[in-house]
Amino acid sequence: MTDRSYWAWGRISDEPTAADLAAAATSLSERYGRTILPVNLPSQSDLSLRTPRVKVPAHLRDITSIDDADRAVHTYGRSFPDRIRAFKADFPEPPDAVLRPETEDQIEQILEWASTNAITVYPFGGGSSVVSGFEPDTADERVISLDMERFDKVLEIDTQSRAARIQAGIYGPALERELKKHGLTMRHFPQSFEFSTLGGWIATRSGGHYATNHTHIDDFVESVRMLTPSGPWESRRLPGSGAGPSPDRLVLGSEGIFGVITEAWVRLQEPPGFRASAGVYFENYEDAWSAAREIGQAKLWPANLRMLDAVEGKNAAGMDGTKTLLVIGFESSDVPQTESLAACLKIARELGGVTDPDEIIDSETSASGAGRQGAVGRWRASFIRAPYAMNSTIPLGLIHDTFETAVTWDAWPTLDSEVRSGVQKVLDDRCGGGTISCRFTHVYPDGPAPYYTFIAPGFSGGELEIWSEIKEAASKAIIKSGGTITHHHAVGKLHRPWYDQQRPGLFEKSLRATKNVLDPAGIMNPGVLID
Amino acid sequence: MTDRSYWAWGRISDEPTAADLAAAATSLSERYGRTILPVNLPSQSDLSLRTPRVKVPAHLRDITSIDDADRAVHTYGRSFPDRIRAFKADFPEPPDAVLRPETEDQIEQILEWASTNAITVYPFGGGSSVVSGFEPDTADERVISLDMERFDKVLEIDTQSRAARIQAGIYGPALERELKKHGLTMRHFPQSFEFSTLGGWIATRSGGHYATNHTHIDDFVESVRMLTPSGPWESRRLPGSGAGPSPDRLVLGSEGIFGVITEAWVRLQEPPGFRASAGVYFENYEDAWSAAREIGQAKLWPANLRMLDAVEGKNAAGMDGTKTLLVIGFESSDVPQTESLAACLKIARELGGVTDPDEIIDSETSASGAGRQGAVGRWRASFIRAPYAMNSTIPLGLIHDTFETAVTWDAWPTLDSEVRSGVQKVLDDRCGGGTISCRFTHVYPDGPAPYYTFIAPGFSGGELEIWSEIKEAASKAIIKSGGTITHHHAVGKLHRPWYDQQRPGLFEKSLRATKNVLDPAGIMNPGVLID
Repeated sequence: MTDRSYWAWGRISDEPTAADLAAAATSLSERYGRTILPVNLPSQSDLSLRTPRVKVPAHLRDITSIDDADRAVHTYGRSFPDRIRAFKADFPEPPDAVLRPETEDQIEQILEWASTNAITVYPFGGGSSVVSGFEPDTADERVISLDMERFDKVLEIDTQSRAARIQAGIYGPALERELKKHGLTMRHFPQSFEFSTLGGWIATRSGGHYATNHTHIDDFVESVRMLTPSGPWESRRLPGSGAGPSPDRLVLGSEGIFGVITEAWVRLQEPPGFRASAGVYFENYEDAWSAAREIGQAKLWPANLRMLDAVEGKNAAGMDGTKTLLVIGFESSDVPQTESLAACLKIARELGGVTDPDEIIDSETSASGAGRQGAVGRWRASFIRAPYAMNSTIPLGLIHDTFETAVTWDAWPTLDSEVRSGVQKVLDDRCGGGTISCRFTHVYPDGPAPYYTFIAPGFSGGELEIWSEIKEAASKAIIKSGGTITHHHAVGKLHRPWYDQQRPGLFEKSLRATKNVLDPAGIMNPGVLID
Repeated sequence: MTDRSYWAWGRISDEPTAADLAAAATSLSERYGRTILPVNLPSQSDLSLRTPRVKVPAHLRDITSIDDADRAVHTYGRSFPDRIRAFKADFPEPPDAVLRPETEDQIEQILEWASTNAITVYPFGGGSSVVSGFEPDTADERVISLDMERFDKVLEIDTQSRAARIQAGIYGPALERELKKHGLTMRHFPQSFEFSTLGGWIATRSGGHYATNHTHIDDFVESVRMLTPSGPWESRRLPGSGAGPSPDRLVLGSEGIFGVITEAWVRLQEPPGFRASAGVYFENYEDAWSAAREIGQAKLWPANLRMLDAVEGKNAAGMDGTKTLLVIGFESSDVPQTESLAACLKIARELGGVTDPDEIIDSETSASGAGRQGAVGRWRASFIRAPYAMNSTIPLGLIHDTFETAVTWDAWPTLDSEVRSGVQKVLDDRCGGGTISCRFTHVYPDGPAPYYTFIAPGFSGGELEIWSEIKEAASKAIIKSGGTITHHHAVGKLHRPWYDQQRPGLFEKSLRATKNVLDPAGIMNPGVLID
């Protein structure tokens, strides 16, 4: 029923071999100066899941799977604790069944059946959540996972408006493949792109590769259709509107608590034929982020504006560990980007940034593809492989995870220092060291979206506890320093305690009131956003 | 208590004189070939308002006015029917009192008193609504207008993030004056700028002068503070977030039904030192809007991208009535805009657009201010004076009003044709002629925001009926053709019937549910958005 690995990022074919794990163990042993032994790979036969407690009605049985591996794949996302538990085949609360509807009628039937029988429904897109976005709970008496993968069509393309009506269960690569046939692209590339869906992006306010201006999926959505237990919700397709509060903005970020997103009209564009990019090196961290700030405030809207601190530069871009890297990139379907890049470089150089002429790539002047060279090219390759790389290292006890936020510039230096010291203390106390590093994934005129990575040698069996302490320290520092508990990873169950502190108290009541309207039986994705 | 005219746009000092009215009568008589006689100007002594039915408690009396002129000013906005009724001193349902709180404590006291005494509260910003956004109703037993004008301070400026915390009652000019002292500007310039407030902009999702990219106030808001009958609602100040549905987006466009916006953190910028603009003339209407579309889709993000059809070009920009004008303008605090303008002109010329070298103005090369010359300059001057000009013509029976929408490009030609024919039919049938014309105020990659103006000679006494028929025809055509009932004029009571058809039915229930949470006694601005 599924070709997805129940524990690794990707497909079964992406799982590391025993030899991969052994090699990783050797490499980690060398890096941390302690003996790390390879562990056995899990196998399908390790799975022994609870007997399904749900009897699916006859008319839905054709779209139902109760296969153990399938249910395991639908139990967790791909956060650090998810990966640890899945690797150990630890699935105490799997969904009782996985349903893969093919039509809206079937979804309506599922929601009606679930509403009248107190069955909890966890909508499932690509399964890449890192925030326990769809994890069943001990409180659920009966649970189904509603996997949208068969809603995978591009239904309609409007080439005049450059927009398309697309089913929500389509995965990133399939979506782009379909659009390419029409000479169009959506160009929303979250790191999870391969294993996430349009509906998942909308439900979680996913962040794409555009570092400035239109950063979130929010900016790509013309209208949304959602099936709720109380009936369909569909907004009018519009390029812009001022008619009351935006109905779409209530669906964007709703994380499945109101209903199942079935399709959306989204904005498209022609593929970029013009690109210009460069890496700029700074001796000084503050100069680098000041350059990012000034470029952001100049409203030149680069597609890429990523700062990598010295540790990130070393680990992910092969630099020497002393400099901060600022990656600047422009793309356009219509207009050369030479001048825009030059304007950015002027700003960056005034702040002490240094460029290597070989690393300034412009489709107007360079023969090869832009931005594939040097540190920038290396960073790009490692970015795409990052989720896979962890398949070999996490099972060996390496504590390796990321978290992210956004904060205004005035509060940023304090947030950065509080986050680093809070996390470093746990790493030092519990792991005898380890690193925390930072990059900017997105930059707004009024503040950055910093993205932190921590890596430390843990010890098998203790990883989850140490990880929780780190997560607690990081989240506390973020909320205390004025950041958001998430810029694009969503809230899920993981971020709830801090989300509760962040949002207006009355907004929580408002969400509950809306929940009562749309999902009166309270069957949809309980535990995220609200109780 | 007020220097505002109770019937004219602006202050008492902006009211036309008897000589102005006589001159306008002569001019209209000539234009329409029928005798239009001047009418008498209203005077303060014409006002005779219903005795206030509310007894304001002693602790609020210092901030209360029951003055007739003051209450009249707070009865209507400045739509066509508002102006007609106000000119006739026709105020059957004025607020019983106008309260001007100076502190949040006072607002809380007002809301508590109103909640427990079934007194309806109409929040009042600048009073420039054209959609009956705050008009008391016969159903209201007792009514107060809550005028926010004393919340007029810039409280805090963060020059690092280029943002400020500003009280919601501040008017546009005062806001910009204060920011200028710090070398900063907000640059949100709706046509109502002089007589509208930050809180009003947020409550109505106001549209500013930026024609592309960040078109609405929505894009300028970092966080909002609102006092509701159930307590304060305050979002965290953030440059971006993905933590659940955006709480701010529920306040943006809420039109006062949830509470009173008291302050907001908004994004600022440095004043533009670089400008480049041009007017491009097209023989063919379709070529002109196609150029707007292609420029919008090229994502060059001009600050100005306004198309004026031949009638608008004649009436507002002094053109010969045969050509369509596309006004293109760029502005930047940091970077010359020469290249961006050149890229737009290339697109426009490929579609047959013609430019006059004297009308291409660039701060890099021209001595004088950019874009003040030729048809573009004339259009700009008439744009700013438009609301004032109607002070003299509307009282004389000239039916003159505007409405606006937004629609995707695929649906735009049909919408345009349906709107024009629907409105023209009423003008022909009821006025023996008249014109309907169109411009684009904003352009999105996926569609334009068309703004229509109709002008016809009416007859004194029949204007409101004819106007209603036009409004009905226009709104019907918009909704039928896939447009939004409003792009930036808000919903109010005026657009309710069509807004009800436009929004998802379940969203209405969701708004009501939130209303019950935030305003359980239902005292806040009833009749707009929901019942």
